[in-house]
Amino acid sequence: MYEQHRDTLDKALSAIAERAYWSAFPESPSPRVYGEGAAERGKEAFEAYLGKPFPLTQPGPQVGAERSPYGIDLGVTYPATDVETLIATARAAMPAWRDAGPPARALTCVEIIKRLNERSFEIANAVQHTTGQAFVMAFQAGGPHAQDRALEAVAYGYAAMTSSAERTRWEKPGKGDPVVMDKKFTVVPRGVALVIGCNTFPTWNAYPGLFASLVTGNPVIVKPHPRAVLPLAITVQVAREVLAEAGFEPGLVQLAAEEESRLASELATHPDVRIVDFTGSTEYGDWLERNARQALVHTEKAGVNTVVLDSTDSWRGMLGNIAFSLSLYSGQMCTAPQNILVPESGIDTDEGHKSFDDVASGLAGALGKLLGDDARAVELTGAIVNDAVLERVENAPSLGEVVVESRALKHPAFPDAVIRTPVVVKVDRSREDVYGREHFGPIAFLVPTSSTEESLEVLRRTTAARGALTASVYSTSPQVLDAAERAALEAGVNLSCNLTGGVFVNQSAAFSDYHGTGANPAATASLTDPGYVAGRFHLVQSRRPA
Amino acid sequence: MYEQHRDTLDKALSAIAERAYWSAFPESPSPRVYGEGAAERGKEAFEAYLGKPFPLTQPGPQVGAERSPYGIDLGVTYPATDVETLIATARAAMPAWRDAGPPARALTCVEIIKRLNERSFEIANAVQHTTGQAFVMAFQAGGPHAQDRALEAVAYGYAAMTSSAERTRWEKPGKGDPVVMDKKFTVVPRGVALVIGCNTFPTWNAYPGLFASLVTGNPVIVKPHPRAVLPLAITVQVAREVLAEAGFEPGLVQLAAEEESRLASELATHPDVRIVDFTGSTEYGDWLERNARQALVHTEKAGVNTVVLDSTDSWRGMLGNIAFSLSLYSGQMCTAPQNILVPESGIDTDEGHKSFDDVASGLAGALGKLLGDDARAVELTGAIVNDAVLERVENAPSLGEVVVESRALKHPAFPDAVIRTPVVVKVDRSREDVYGREHFGPIAFLVPTSSTEESLEVLRRTTAARGALTASVYSTSPQVLDAAERAALEAGVNLSCNLTGGVFVNQSAAFSDYHGTGANPAATASLTDPGYVAGRFHLVQSRRPA
Repeated sequence: MYEQHRDTLDKALSAIAERAYWSAFPESPSPRVYGEGAAERGKEAFEAYLGKPFPLTQPGPQVGAERSPYGIDLGVTYPATDVETLIATARAAMPAWRDAGPPARALTCVEIIKRLNERSFEIANAVQHTTGQAFVMAFQAGGPHAQDRALEAVAYGYAAMTSSAERTRWEKPGKGDPVVMDKKFTVVPRGVALVIGCNTFPTWNAYPGLFASLVTGNPVIVKPHPRAVLPLAITVQVAREVLAEAGFEPGLVQLAAEEESRLASELATHPDVRIVDFTGSTEYGDWLERNARQALVHTEKAGVNTVVLDSTDSWRGMLGNIAFSLSLYSGQMCTAPQNILVPESGIDTDEGHKSFDDVASGLAGALGKLLGDDARAVELTGAIVNDAVLERVENAPSLGEVVVESRALKHPAFPDAVIRTPVVVKVDRSREDVYGREHFGPIAFLVPTSSTEESLEVLRRTTAARGALTASVYSTSPQVLDAAERAALEAGVNLSCNLTGGVFVNQSAAFSDYHGTGANPAATASLTDPGYVAGRFHLVQSRRPA
Repeated sequence: MYEQHRDTLDKALSAIAERAYWSAFPESPSPRVYGEGAAERGKEAFEAYLGKPFPLTQPGPQVGAERSPYGIDLGVTYPATDVETLIATARAAMPAWRDAGPPARALTCVEIIKRLNERSFEIANAVQHTTGQAFVMAFQAGGPHAQDRALEAVAYGYAAMTSSAERTRWEKPGKGDPVVMDKKFTVVPRGVALVIGCNTFPTWNAYPGLFASLVTGNPVIVKPHPRAVLPLAITVQVAREVLAEAGFEPGLVQLAAEEESRLASELATHPDVRIVDFTGSTEYGDWLERNARQALVHTEKAGVNTVVLDSTDSWRGMLGNIAFSLSLYSGQMCTAPQNILVPESGIDTDEGHKSFDDVASGLAGALGKLLGDDARAVELTGAIVNDAVLERVENAPSLGEVVVESRALKHPAFPDAVIRTPVVVKVDRSREDVYGREHFGPIAFLVPTSSTEESLEVLRRTTAARGALTASVYSTSPQVLDAAERAALEAGVNLSCNLTGGVFVNQSAAFSDYHGTGANPAATASLTDPGYVAGRFHLVQSRRPA
């Protein structure tokens, strides 16, 4: 079954090995690639869900209280299946899925991902109206980019499961006849897996864990954030449809919906839950690591992402790139920069020496140019995802000297959407109590340092203490770039150098860029790498004389 | 450096993928393979250590109180370097080792292993007189077999570090010119590693963790069991010698010697210790898992290994094989069988139907034949490693009905050696409180069950509850063998079927057999498989426009 996906799987395997550009799914939402009318049909499908029970065949009373950051109540409800039923269903579905073996599981996963891709527009609308992302971003990050990460996880899982022979005839020379044994090695799943979704990237952040666990033989319970259920409900529905079609129990993938936030802890500490994947706050991630002791726990938590400015041969390119990185989805990305470290003596650029204040005003100018027109700006910033972020933006001026003010934008189509441009606050380098922790949202700090050397030391120190998912440096000096690479190695953070064009520090490309490293507190592992998949399965052998 | 080992590394890589027979080191201690006089020189080298400070260039006062289970005081002392010095030395040695990269590290590790191999006779004497193993076993398991496991760990670590490109040029088609980025991906170590050795297999059980951590870039602190220091002191000495020769800090491998047992806990919970490998008791393994929260903890703990008798076409072969498995090193192996489950109605064999009592007397006969001559028997049983084991053997008759008595043997060369043959006790199947836990040492239980089906259910239940490193089944029925394989998969334990010749359930071959699975409580991972090496390093990337 699904043998037609062999080629896709092989290409994914070769892409993870080569780390060169490859993508299974086009990221452009154009009718040319997704077909005429696809956008309209996706929107209609999304709208058809509103105000109704979501069509998912799981038992339980209906719950749901999602409200779009764009100001509309979704009114979709979902079955709230109780915990013991979820666990029992998952366990019952496991043996046949285990026995199917790695190739059948991998090809079935590819089919699920392909069908998710066909529903990218529907998912994009669901992502937009649960996260506040602008539509194009919701399409790309919530659709094809998330699907690529899913396929990448399937490829890594498949590679890990099949790196050694499944069977062998073992002949050991002896004094007389050789000793001959037939041995077989079976991949067995770790057990029931739990994926805890987040509010801002419900699909992109959930797919790696979901597919890494599923391909390695584990049934998966998907517990979405109560404010971002719909994108994962569609995902679960698609997975169940494909699994049933392939002759497996749809209970291999289940939704755990709720209106409050208590299910995650109950599920994560259940003795039968053996894998937990979580993206979200450091506080809750640490709680999971401490309390879900029976499980393999992978977390991606908060971090403090840093930009080190030393010098540049593209003053405008640099400012434009940073302004874009701060504005994209209003900085509500775990990869968005927060701390911009600049020598107090300023930096050398292709437009001459720029003082610290020149950098501040240059950044203000770049942000103003990028976000000057409300109607265009909202397609970059999206909406503020929740009140906690809004409160942080509004309180940010109290943290230092405001060098770029946050501005409220009006959305032409959604009058109730809450939209804010980034605030940039100058903070003294002695105030590590302020810039040394994460302020999630459109909040950045411009910090004067005594030198680039000190900037790198701050990068090293804050990353080691609080974690980071990205770091960035601008310099025309090979020595400084080398020193920055060394600081990033020691801090265990992925580094981008001299981004002045269309690549942004926030973005990581599937099959090439690692997301997270596991080497600093922001994450326990890099998403989708060998360390991410390895513990999700075991090998059990049987041997007998031939 | 050490480029001459490329071929060995390549062969090891291909052997882990194929799982067919391959061994880098001959297991026969014959002068033909290890050279004329090698045995004598090894013995002399061992004897030269006795009663003196061991030649290891580490700071600290001398400690040591090893006494051979064969009844002689070793009188060797070792530097007791303090914890903070160990940690600081390890950390200082790390950056250059990281920067050397995977191939240089792997080839250096192969050179260390090759030199350990050259000192196999010396190590064999040290293993014999710390563990109580008989000489030939101390040579094989403590020498070449341990060295093969070390090489296997190096190969797995190398494969995991190099499965993806180290550098790539990434070209993404754009609207105009393509976006071109140069990316590099660097392996960074997790941090200081701790290996906690055990009393019974100081080298075999320590080498996988030691070499898996070292090849992936981590400095290693080796904390031997206070009663089995010498084999690991020699190992540390060899590693330091090779590292220094290759231009690295010898502090990458250090010994943490002590006379009591307090160092392990202090080191394991030190904030700078990031990896812990432990073999030993369930109680302490669980303590480490609960308390060494800052570290990746791999443990191999106790288990209850089971033999299911259903039927056989080689009655004598079966009895002889089981008798050997129970007697080898007096059952003081984590892989030795403990529970022999037999239908109360007996079993069909090539010598006709045998009742439960026939099985008991057959086993008594096989043990009597195998161990009848003291001088020959001690070369199989070795000596009892410590008083706790002796006490268990002596108390075993109180646990049920003795069907084979334990016998004290006299060693012709070591009059003070404490040697016991296995005791076999018949225990009712209702007494899972007795046979459901581990009785480490030469103690086996013969348990009558209502049927083979019930035997498999007991296997599944005890393994899931208490863990197991091995399971074994004898049956002429393909259906029963299939059911046994299924039970073993569900219990997550490696199974051996119908062993009647020269392969024993206790033994696992490097590059082919997995040792442990991670799928039951006896171990967190299979030694040396991808899951064993994956978390010991991270990948950190740097990207810049080309």
